[in-house]
Amino acid sequence: MANAPRNAWYPLTWSRDVGRTLARHKVLGIDLVVYRTERGEPVALDDVCPHRLAPLSCGKLKGDAVECGYHGLTFGPDGACVRIPGQTTVPTSARVRSYPLREQMGLVWIWPGDAALADTAPVYDLPQYHSPLWHAVEGEALHIGTSYLNLADNLCDPAHVSFVHLSTLGNAASEDIPVQHEVVGKGVVVWRWIRDAPPIPLFAKYGNFSGHVDRWHYYHYDAPCIAVIDFGSAEAAAALDPAERDRGLRIFACHFITPVDAHHCIDHWLHVRNFALSDADVDQRLHEDFRTAFNEDKEILEEIDRVERTRPETRRIGLAIDAAPKKMRRIVERMIDAERSPLAAE
Amino acid sequence: MANAPRNAWYPLTWSRDVGRTLARHKVLGIDLVVYRTERGEPVALDDVCPHRLAPLSCGKLKGDAVECGYHGLTFGPDGACVRIPGQTTVPTSARVRSYPLREQMGLVWIWPGDAALADTAPVYDLPQYHSPLWHAVEGEALHIGTSYLNLADNLCDPAHVSFVHLSTLGNAASEDIPVQHEVVGKGVVVWRWIRDAPPIPLFAKYGNFSGHVDRWHYYHYDAPCIAVIDFGSAEAAAALDPAERDRGLRIFACHFITPVDAHHCIDHWLHVRNFALSDADVDQRLHEDFRTAFNEDKEILEEIDRVERTRPETRRIGLAIDAAPKKMRRIVERMIDAERSPLAAE
Amino acid sequence: MANAPRNAWYPLTWSRDVGRTLARHKVLGIDLVVYRTERGEPVALDDVCPHRLAPLSCGKLKGDAVECGYHGLTFGPDGACVRIPGQTTVPTSARVRSYPLREQMGLVWIWPGDAALADTAPVYDLPQYHSPLWHAVEGEALHIGTSYLNLADNLCDPAHVSFVHLSTLGNAASEDIPVQHEVVGKGVVVWRWIRDAPPIPLFAKYGNFSGHVDRWHYYHYDAPCIAVIDFGSAEAAAALDPAERDRGLRIFACHFITPVDAHHCIDHWLHVRNFALSDADVDQRLHEDFRTAFNEDKEILEEIDRVERTRPETRRIGLAIDAAPKKMRRIVERMIDAERSPLAAE
Repeated sequence: MANAPRNAWYPLTWSRDVGRTLARHKVLGIDLVVYRTERGEPVALDDVCPHRLAPLSCGKLKGDAVECGYHGLTFGPDGACVRIPGQTTVPTSARVRSYPLREQMGLVWIWPGDAALADTAPVYDLPQYHSPLWHAVEGEALHIGTSYLNLADNLCDPAHVSFVHLSTLGNAASEDIPVQHEVVGKGVVVWRWIRDAPPIPLFAKYGNFSGHVDRWHYYHYDAPCIAVIDFGSAEAAAALDPAERDRGLRIFACHFITPVDAHHCIDHWLHVRNFALSDADVDQRLHEDFRTAFNEDKEILEEIDRVERTRPETRRIGLAIDAAPKKMRRIVERMIDAERSPLAAE
Repeated sequence: MANAPRNAWYPLTWSRDVGRTLARHKVLGIDLVVYRTERGEPVALDDVCPHRLAPLSCGKLKGDAVECGYHGLTFGPDGACVRIPGQTTVPTSARVRSYPLREQMGLVWIWPGDAALADTAPVYDLPQYHSPLWHAVEGEALHIGTSYLNLADNLCDPAHVSFVHLSTLGNAASEDIPVQHEVVGKGVVVWRWIRDAPPIPLFAKYGNFSGHVDRWHYYHYDAPCIAVIDFGSAEAAAALDPAERDRGLRIFACHFITPVDAHHCIDHWLHVRNFALSDADVDQRLHEDFRTAFNEDKEILEEIDRVERTRPETRRIGLAIDAAPKKMRRIVERMIDAERSPLAAE
Repeated sequence: MANAPRNAWYPLTWSRDVGRTLARHKVLGIDLVVYRTERGEPVALDDVCPHRLAPLSCGKLKGDAVECGYHGLTFGPDGACVRIPGQTTVPTSARVRSYPLREQMGLVWIWPGDAALADTAPVYDLPQYHSPLWHAVEGEALHIGTSYLNLADNLCDPAHVSFVHLSTLGNAASEDIPVQHEVVGKGVVVWRWIRDAPPIPLFAKYGNFSGHVDRWHYYHYDAPCIAVIDFGSAEAAAALDPAERDRGLRIFACHFITPVDAHHCIDHWLHVRNFALSDADVDQRLHEDFRTAFNEDKEILEEIDRVERTRPETRRIGLAIDAAPKKMRRIVERMIDAERSPLAAE
C-alpha cells in the first residue's frame, strides 16, 4: 500500500474484540490473524502459513500458539514455528512475522513497519478519556470503501459540516465562516468559531439553550491516522473565551483510522463529553447521532473513491478550505518519502 | 468509449422521468446529473464536483442550480459555478460541462460531443407518432449488458425473428426467405415480405384473420442509435402492394438506444399502431408481448457480449443476412473516423 | 489454461446428467454444449456459434443436431454445419469443434486436446466398482474455487487428514506418522499405516470395534486428474498384513477432477466399499460423511487459491510430507512440456 507510511502506530481493532479466538484483520493490505495469549497479551501474526499458504486464521488456537488447519504447523506469539508434524527438524525459514502491538484508549494498536523502529513513546492518549469529570463512550468500527486519505481530508475539514450534517452536527449558520489552521508537530489543527447563531440539532437537544449560542470546532489531526474533534457550544450571552471551552457543552469525537487497503478504511470512533456524565440515555442518543452523521460521511466518501478509481485523470480545483487537508497530505507524503530514502532503516 | 461517435443526438432518458429531483444517468461512459429547471427545461451536467470529485447528484437542487452535498459549491444550468461557501472569489476553472439537450417523441436527447457542432436539424421524428389516425404507447427502458452495436446488429436484422421470437413476433414460415437492404443517408433499410403464410402469434391475436397472411418487416436504422421497425400483416387474399401497408395491421416499433458504456446499453422502446386505437387492453397486451420479445433479445445479446469479452480472439464467419448490419457498422465507423480526423472540430 | 495438459482424458460430468437437453459445461477454460444423440451417444461441441458468437446452449436440440437460437445455423454431432437459413451454400468454415468422449464409471470423459492423439486405451477403471462383492455409491460434483493442482496436492497427501477431518476421516493418532511414496507410471502412490490406535470417527460408526485398530491410507494419483484413495481399518489384534486389506473395512474413495479454469475445478466423487453392501442407510450416512469431509477441504483450498492470487510472490517452505505432491506436479509439468515441444502433434 503505497500511500501510507509503515512506520507508525495504527489502530488495529477494539480491544474488546480481541480474545481467545482467532480473528482476521487487514491493515495496510497485510492479512493478520489476531488473538490473545492465556495471560491476555494481544498477538498479531501474518495470516498465512509459509508451507501451503493456508490462512492461519482457519486453524486453531492451542495455548498461546496457532496451529495451521491444514497440516498442523504451529507458531508461537513471536511467529517462530514450534512444531511440524511428521518431522523432527524445524527449518529456520518456518516462521511468520509477528507485529508490535500496544493497547490504548480501548483499542489495540499495531506497528506494521520495522519492529526495531517501533516508537516507544506512548501511543496517542486523550487525558479527558480517563478523567472522572468526563464520560467516554465507545463507538463502532465503521467500514468505509474509500482511501483512508479521503477520510483524513474529511477530518481536517470543519467546512463540510454545514452541508453534510444538517440533521446532527451542522447548520447553515456556519456556511460562509472561514476556517483557520496551524501545523503542529506532525499534524494540523483546524478551527473556527460560529458566534451568536442558532444551536446545531445535536446541542439543541442537550443544551436547554434559551437563545443563540457560540459554537466551536477544533479538528486535531495527527498524521497518519488520528483525528480528535473538539466541538461544543455555550450561550452566546456568555461570550466565552476560547480558553474556557469547558464551561460550555463540550465533546471530543475521536476517530482512529485503520487503512485496510488502497480503497478501504475503518473509522474507529468514540466520544468523550463533559455533560450528562452518567446518563445512559444520552449515551445511546449521542451514539445514534454520531452513527447517523458518520454514515453521511461514508456515503459521500465512497462516491469520491469510486470517481477517483473510474476517472483517475480528473483534475480538481483548490479552495481556501483545502489549506489544512493539503498540509496534512504533505506531512503524510514526507513520512512515506522518509521511509523510502536510502538512510531509512527499512 | 471508443466505439461510438460523440457528435450525435442520443436518447438520454424518458422525458417523463426528468423532473425537479437530481437523477443519475450515464451516456457514452459519461456520468451525468439530470433535472429540470423551474421553467421546465431539462439540464444535464457532468456529475462530478471539480473540487473533491463528489457526484453532484448527491447534492441538492436549489432553484435552477445544483449545490454539491460536500462543501456547497453551486453550479447553474450552464455549468458555471455561482457560489463557493467560505470565499468570495470563484475561479473560472470552477465549472462543469453542460450538455445540449432536446425533447422529442417522449424522450430527452443529449449531444455528448462538441456543443458548437450540435446538429440544429430536428432530432428524429416519426410522423405517425403525432397523427390522430395512429396510437402511440410508450414502453420501457430495457437495460442490456451488451455493446450498443450488438443491439444495433439485431435491429438491422429481420432474420433473427424466425428463431428468437417464436412466441410473439416470428414463426418458421420466414426462416428461409432472404432479406434485402439499401443504404439510405447515414442509415440502412432492411426488409422482407413473407407472402401467403400463417400469421405470427402477435397478429393472430388482433387480426381476426381467416387464413394465410402477407407479412412485412422494414427495419429502418439511422446511425448511430435509432431503429424503427415497420411491420404488419394483411389477408393474403388481398395481395397487398408494398405501398398500401396502411391497409393492413401495421405497427412501428421504435428503439432509441443509449450507449451507456462499452458493454451496456439501454433500449428505450415504444410502439405506434393503426388499429385498436383507443383500446387500453390492447395497449397492455402489446406492451407485454414486446417486453417478452425484447427480453429474448436481451438474453442472447448479453451472452454474445460475454463471449466477446472472454474470447476476444474468436473469429466469425459472414453470412448473406449480415450484409445490412455490416454496412451499418461501417457507417458508424466512418462517423467515428471523421471525429478523429485533424479537420474535425473536436 | 496453461497449467493442464490438453492431451488427456478428463471427467466432463456425470453420465446421469447428460441427456436430451442442451447443458453447459466448461473444461480447461473451454465452453462446451453437451447432450446425447437419439441413440444415446454423448456429444460435446464448442459452445459458440461461429456466426455471431451466441452460445449454442441457448439454442435447440433438433434430432441429433443443435440449432443456434439466434439465426438457426445448425450443427451436427461432428460439429459440421448442416444448415444456414436464408442461403443454400454452407462455407466449410462454418463448423464448431467436436470433442472425443468416453463413458466409464458413471462419468462422461472428454479429450480436450488433439483428437488424433486421443488415447485409445481404456479410461481409468476400478475393478471393485463392477464387482458383486463390493458396493459403489455415486457422489456429487463438488465445485471448488481453486486451481485443480491445489486439489491434486490434497489428494497426494494423507498428512492433512489428521488436521482437516477430525470429525470424519482423521484423528490425532496419525499426526506424527511419516508418509511413504513411490512413483508408478505417470502417477504416485502415497501411503501410511497407523497401527494400534483408536478408530477414526467414520469407522467407529460401522466397525463395531472392541478396541484399537490398524488403519491404512493408500493414495493413488494418476496424473493429471484421477485420485483413488484406498483406506480402511481392522482390529489391531488381527495384525493385518498389508496384502490382506480386504479382511478389514475397506473403502475406495474416488475423486475425478475436472479443471474448469485456472482457479476453479470440480471434484466428482464416489465411493466403493466392502461392507454393508445393501444397506441404503449406510449409503446415505457415508455420503453425508464424505460431503462433510470434502467441504472441509474445499474451504481450505479456496482460501489458498485466494492467497495465491492476491499474494503471488509469497514464498513457501518445503516439508517432508511434500515429497509426493511435488513429484505429482513434476509429472504434470512434463506432460505439458511434451505438448509444447516441436515434435508434439499439436
